[in-house]
Amino acid sequence: MNRQELYNQIRTKKSCLCVGLDTDIQKIPSQFTQAQDPIFEFNKTVIDTTKDLCVAYKPNIAFYESMGIAGWQSLEKTIDYIPDNIFKIADAKRGDIQNTGKMYAKTFFEQMNFDAVTVAPYMGEDSVAPFLEFDDKWVIVLGLTSNVGSHDFQQLRLDSGEMLYERVIKTVQKWGNPNNLMFVVGATHPDLLKDIRKMAEDYFFLIPGVGAQGGDLKEVMENGSNGEIGMLINSSRNIIYAGDGADHEEKMRLSALGMQQLMAAYI
Amino acid sequence: MNRQELYNQIRTKKSCLCVGLDTDIQKIPSQFTQAQDPIFEFNKTVIDTTKDLCVAYKPNIAFYESMGIAGWQSLEKTIDYIPDNIFKIADAKRGDIQNTGKMYAKTFFEQMNFDAVTVAPYMGEDSVAPFLEFDDKWVIVLGLTSNVGSHDFQQLRLDSGEMLYERVIKTVQKWGNPNNLMFVVGATHPDLLKDIRKMAEDYFFLIPGVGAQGGDLKEVMENGSNGEIGMLINSSRNIIYAGDGADHEEKMRLSALGMQQLMAAYI
Repeated sequence: MNRQELYNQIRTKKSCLCVGLDTDIQKIPSQFTQAQDPIFEFNKTVIDTTKDLCVAYKPNIAFYESMGIAGWQSLEKTIDYIPDNIFKIADAKRGDIQNTGKMYAKTFFEQMNFDAVTVAPYMGEDSVAPFLEFDDKWVIVLGLTSNVGSHDFQQLRLDSGEMLYERVIKTVQKWGNPNNLMFVVGATHPDLLKDIRKMAEDYFFLIPGVGAQGGDLKEVMENGSNGEIGMLINSSRNIIYAGDGADHEEKMRLSALGMQQLMAAYI
Repeated sequence: MNRQELYNQIRTKKSCLCVGLDTDIQKIPSQFTQAQDPIFEFNKTVIDTTKDLCVAYKPNIAFYESMGIAGWQSLEKTIDYIPDNIFKIADAKRGDIQNTGKMYAKTFFEQMNFDAVTVAPYMGEDSVAPFLEFDDKWVIVLGLTSNVGSHDFQQLRLDSGEMLYERVIKTVQKWGNPNNLMFVVGATHPDLLKDIRKMAEDYFFLIPGVGAQGGDLKEVMENGSNGEIGMLINSSRNIIYAGDGADHEEKMRLSALGMQQLMAAYI
């Protein structure tokens, strides 16, 4: 999916919601656990219930990998089930030397039909470049993440005066462009979001950390938007585990709808 | 495998060689391509030919992931085939927030029987900590990698005067200890290896970049050893693709033997 198509979806649905498919067999409601493929059956319900309210789905690959081969099967079925007009992000946080990076790109862009992959920047240009070579595919580089550990290294000050995450966001832009590159910017740093928007005005941000991790959606909409919204705001646990019994679908829809309606006021 | 057992293997075999199983279907000799599981059959030959000369195997997970479910099956079979007294490293370069990190740890330590996983440090303590909670298992954190891109961020100078990779190596030591934590230090920075050894005297280093990437083995042995050697020196392409026809096993053994014999002079 290209930039214009993604923006069209955002305008049509009045939503920049990304639903995180962090599907954990220990946490899904009991009515799914007897299914032949509980993870896929659960995801199917999530997709059926939320697909008119969101523009992206983001499976975190760890949850599938930890189930072994059965998990990869659930993931492939899930990706095939997501409608074509919804953006598909592999939250994989990969990153390796060039010949290996190519392999990871092949996994997510060719083996599975993802639109985007998250990548960690620590290994530098040759770890990011292989993901930039595919038409209408995207790399989403970790800029400033939403977790507590983002203070350990990302927010160290360099001798140039910049923070490390600022340097990452500025440098990585030289390797790609707003049509093939996005950044992860956590919602738990609303004060910094405005400045980061100035550093990367035309780029999409993938914004995790709203909800369970404490980020405030309204503040994010106000501080992070550019002329074309330029954000995919992710919520995982707050949506997919909103209910845990017979009310599962109803509560999940209400949770997603609440976010979409708040977003609509800004789109 | 614990630290003492690993050191015992190094002394017994007079080797600190780690063979990288970066097995690429495009590169393996033609006699394997007709097998039902070419990747596993090739790996089996590598293991049979080199297991008395090395103390560790390191499959780079990207190569298996890119083959889809069949690739994960080849990986599981490979891990099961490696003898118990050889250290098994999942070169996965993972790293995610705490609840996700736990999933990745589960994948490699429980789902598959790896001894160690490589992890990228960019997301900080909560991305590394979940891997430290398993008995006799190891996390290997990227310190200074062997690739060109290591200059982009790892070698940036902080306002404290340290390079970023120095800060990473010092800070991460506070989260673990020499019995559950190692660092990746590329062989392509032999001048820096001596200094890095002083920063982390008792820690094992996983050293990629000898051979195909240009690092010099003798220099690494001289600059990187501590009292218990403290290094696993990896070679992938130079060993596993040393021959490409009927001479495959012979050339592979010669390549591994050459490295082991050079190492033996220092052990």
